[in-house]
Amino acid sequence: MEFHFLGTGAGVPAKKRNVSALALRFLEQKRGVWLFDCGEATQHQFLHSALSIPAISTIFISHLHGDHVYGLPGLLSSRSFQGGKTPLTIYGPKGIKAYIEHSLAATNTVLKYPFTIVELAGSCQFEHEDCAISVFSLQHPVQSFGFRIEEKAKPGKLNVEALREKGISPGPLYAAIKKGEHVQLENGEWLDGSRYVEEPIKGRTVVICGDTAPVEEVSVQAKEADVLVHEATFASDHQAHAGDFGHSTIEDVAKLATSAGVKHLVLTHISSRYAQNELFYLQEAKAAFSSVIVAEDMLVLNLSKKGELTTHD
Amino acid sequence: MEFHFLGTGAGVPAKKRNVSALALRFLEQKRGVWLFDCGEATQHQFLHSALSIPAISTIFISHLHGDHVYGLPGLLSSRSFQGGKTPLTIYGPKGIKAYIEHSLAATNTVLKYPFTIVELAGSCQFEHEDCAISVFSLQHPVQSFGFRIEEKAKPGKLNVEALREKGISPGPLYAAIKKGEHVQLENGEWLDGSRYVEEPIKGRTVVICGDTAPVEEVSVQAKEADVLVHEATFASDHQAHAGDFGHSTIEDVAKLATSAGVKHLVLTHISSRYAQNELFYLQEAKAAFSSVIVAEDMLVLNLSKKGELTTHD
Repeated sequence: MEFHFLGTGAGVPAKKRNVSALALRFLEQKRGVWLFDCGEATQHQFLHSALSIPAISTIFISHLHGDHVYGLPGLLSSRSFQGGKTPLTIYGPKGIKAYIEHSLAATNTVLKYPFTIVELAGSCQFEHEDCAISVFSLQHPVQSFGFRIEEKAKPGKLNVEALREKGISPGPLYAAIKKGEHVQLENGEWLDGSRYVEEPIKGRTVVICGDTAPVEEVSVQAKEADVLVHEATFASDHQAHAGDFGHSTIEDVAKLATSAGVKHLVLTHISSRYAQNELFYLQEAKAAFSSVIVAEDMLVLNLSKKGELTTHD
Repeated sequence: MEFHFLGTGAGVPAKKRNVSALALRFLEQKRGVWLFDCGEATQHQFLHSALSIPAISTIFISHLHGDHVYGLPGLLSSRSFQGGKTPLTIYGPKGIKAYIEHSLAATNTVLKYPFTIVELAGSCQFEHEDCAISVFSLQHPVQSFGFRIEEKAKPGKLNVEALREKGISPGPLYAAIKKGEHVQLENGEWLDGSRYVEEPIKGRTVVICGDTAPVEEVSVQAKEADVLVHEATFASDHQAHAGDFGHSTIEDVAKLATSAGVKHLVLTHISSRYAQNELFYLQEAKAAFSSVIVAEDMLVLNLSKKGELTTHD
């Protein structure tokens, strides 16, 4: 699973950090690319990435502020222009449907692919492309969501070696044994299938949050998550400022991540005021949490099946 | 007068050509920056130019296609965020007001400067910041406009030398003489002021067109213009294609420019199909008109008071 950080700045675009967008690419699965937020010029960032816009199957919008949605109409149009034919689903807060439909209608834009816009009224759970999605509310001047994505566990491997020792060769019985059922062998003996199946392979869990002041719910939703992507607009030098505007500081987020026991924390949505002093921000982040990454535009992280997070070369 | 070509591509952004935007900066006058069209990521192009977004006083939108307007909500927001306080006027086709207002309302965006949106129903003339503006209709699947901007002529210089020879020293009489009035001197003699004033200094005329198939009106509006900026989405290898989509070829535009007797022609809105073969496009352009420039993103041209067009270093 790859995380492509396409926009890691806050509020307005800057030379080194564009406004918000994060793409998830699932390498081993047949899921499409999932895009989280779509600030202006997100489609331009795609031009410089290994991702294709028609490959996007799902867009999650955390909240309706311009720096998270102004790239939507253009990206949706370009998906059509570039030959995208597969269905697209867009999840977002109430108002997202009218925003998209009005922007497209005003510009006489007709998309040549089926698309569904799902307005999320509040916290909810659903299944999407073989993952369990949990949507939860954050704290911001407008309704803002976090998304917990949990891959389903896969059945454990069959212990073929042990079955062979019992004289059972690959065949129709294997399917039943893999399900952990009790099966009767040719010699009349009963066999407990569950004893020949390894532990289920746990799916990965990642939590991606929109803009927010620190909220306890994040540490609940991100409990033992492999990766938590959270905004940290400010460092501790702007603690009061962060609170005033419904944003978080590095320290706020580190506390939540520690409480949740997340394996890896990625900080994003970083104020341009640190552009001249990135080191200050970086040092504070490193001191605040054991496995932390400060996102940069075009950073690609790979989360292995085993939950190891590495930087993509 | 500087022309800043911020986006010179057609339809969708490409690595080397962004979608449409052109800024005019008036160096000697107290006018603000005028922006013509505002495709997505126009505000990003400002980051790489010598222009400031708060300096924009006027935006002209040629037509309501996404590649000409999707950058508007973000640019308007950033103008506020960056401290812009001066009034802004936006001219555009019917529908521009609803598009802007809905985009801002959907994202809870409040602009901290006064702005006026003027919907243009069709061809019209008006004065704006000391220039005569003529708006004229083009031919495109949606209503599309061209804009003729004509600076007012300035009064000619006073022939101070000749007045001194007549014994008239600088003083209150000079103002009346400069206006070309008849004035009575102290000795009772009458003097025809107009004989002591040089010819008025002609203002510059530039014509900037939106997307269009070739229309004769352009050669009327651009009659002896200093600069005509016109789309030439295609070269002659796509003559039929251009017609089908309401666009022009280099040859189409060269004919109009020749017929109008324009001094300098600038071609823009160039299809990405020429990205791999710019030379082909360039050679055709050079052969088609004597003084022609094929615009590139971030190209800056300077039009002197005397009508000389030079590339900015």
